[in-house]
Amino acid sequence: MAHSHGHSHGYDPEHEHDEDHDELQHCIEECLNCHAVCTMTAQYCLTEGGEHADVNVIGVLLDCAEICQVSANFLLRGSPHHVVTCAACAELCRACEEACRAISGDERLIHCAEICAACAESCERMASGSGLSDAGEVEED
Amino acid sequence: MAHSHGHSHGYDPEHEHDEDHDELQHCIEECLNCHAVCTMTAQYCLTEGGEHADVNVIGVLLDCAEICQVSANFLLRGSPHHVVTCAACAELCRACEEACRAISGDERLIHCAEICAACAESCERMASGSGLSDAGEVEED
Amino acid sequence: MAHSHGHSHGYDPEHEHDEDHDELQHCIEECLNCHAVCTMTAQYCLTEGGEHADVNVIGVLLDCAEICQVSANFLLRGSPHHVVTCAACAELCRACEEACRAISGDERLIHCAEICAACAESCERMASGSGLSDAGEVEED
Amino acid sequence: MAHSHGHSHGYDPEHEHDEDHDELQHCIEECLNCHAVCTMTAQYCLTEGGEHADVNVIGVLLDCAEICQVSANFLLRGSPHHVVTCAACAELCRACEEACRAISGDERLIHCAEICAACAESCERMASGSGLSDAGEVEED
Repeated sequence: MAHSHGHSHGYDPEHEHDEDHDELQHCIEECLNCHAVCTMTAQYCLTEGGEHADVNVIGVLLDCAEICQVSANFLLRGSPHHVVTCAACAELCRACEEACRAISGDERLIHCAEICAACAESCERMASGSGLSDAGEVEED
Repeated sequence: MAHSHGHSHGYDPEHEHDEDHDELQHCIEECLNCHAVCTMTAQYCLTEGGEHADVNVIGVLLDCAEICQVSANFLLRGSPHHVVTCAACAELCRACEEACRAISGDERLIHCAEICAACAESCERMASGSGLSDAGEVEED
Repeated sequence: MAHSHGHSHGYDPEHEHDEDHDELQHCIEECLNCHAVCTMTAQYCLTEGGEHADVNVIGVLLDCAEICQVSANFLLRGSPHHVVTCAACAELCRACEEACRAISGDERLIHCAEICAACAESCERMASGSGLSDAGEVEED
Repeated sequence: MAHSHGHSHGYDPEHEHDEDHDELQHCIEECLNCHAVCTMTAQYCLTEGGEHADVNVIGVLLDCAEICQVSANFLLRGSPHHVVTCAACAELCRACEEACRAISGDERLIHCAEICAACAESCERMASGSGLSDAGEVEED
């Protein structure tokens, strides 16, 4: 029988030491990394000026940085509501990726877009619950 | 003809002075208020101990406080992505309301539940876009 | 004899209903207000462009907004360590006030400077402890 | 001749590639790590209950987690005001370390205390400016 996953029914800061835990740990790292890169990229864009400092570019970088931080915090607390914040985080990461790719020829923005894409993917997995339920399913019999 | 709403296409920290603006302003206040009440309630529960200090109660109060802060920040920035964070905020407010109501006979928790419910309602309106598009529709002809 | 003030020795989210409480409540409101105004002003400056969107102007507005939020949170939790964050907040508010005043002829920046000054003053009082100890002294005999 | 250090006069998200940069990068990592560990430890303590869930213990863990996050953000933005937040962060880390050590015989709290001590040390170096000016001095002639 599948073992019940603590974090699907309540706060579980210790998490379980299995595939779920790896997926969770990986997502925390992606979120923290994306938060850091978006924060630095926003400042870089302000320094560059011009189209880089457009309110829509800086705005989505700040939005993405902030929701990544929150998504990481929910995961760190082992919150059962992390699916909500991971889903929101994935959406913002996609929007930020798009905004970064819209300015062509800048390596730092391309790098930021790649980090956002990686975070979006990880958050989408967490939001769909696949990262948390697969291992349980596998162990079912 | 309907005027186009700045914040539906880009960041608009000034917002427009019409019904939309009132709805937006109201939602910011609900989010900031709910953030403050949940933060104080979490500390109150820790002081009380017992079932009040259960990890699930404190956990959802911290979750709700944090997402309310973020939701307010997206609205303050006039972010076009506020629908994402308002929707997430509404979900957490409902979860927090439920957790507060589950402990009976405590006036502070009943108060917190009511604040959460009011914030959830306002965020749901913003997330559905009804708070932002109605005025525009009305002015269409 | 002077009663001991809970928040000077430990976390006290309920606070006491006296002059201290009013000072504390006032400071929370100043911090939340300054956070909101700085956040909106940063977006406004990005929209304006030019000297308004200088990295040093946007930077200090983001810095000030963030520390104001944290200062409010420490006060809301009734943290005995609020003197540390209030002192830090006051310093950033002064720096932000100065940056806003350096760009002349813009009413929104003048407004932001005034809000920063008011928050700095309130935080300085909390940081020096004068806001918290006066009431206790008076009740001493 | 000593080169002028960008982040001592204005926001510099790119930072310079020398000893200063390493010190800065190291401090960001310590702050992010301490934020994560304190957040997880707070949830762990809530789960344990008893003296672990005392409002003063949870309170200082939440305080420390929050100021670490802010300190990291100031450093990531290359803010010239990072000395203010690093100093505040160092103080909270010391308070949190002490609170963790006061509960004896718990390996997770000992671990948290060690992380806090490491972060405090790094932040103290940044706050004193030694991490940022030494390299410049050395290169002066």
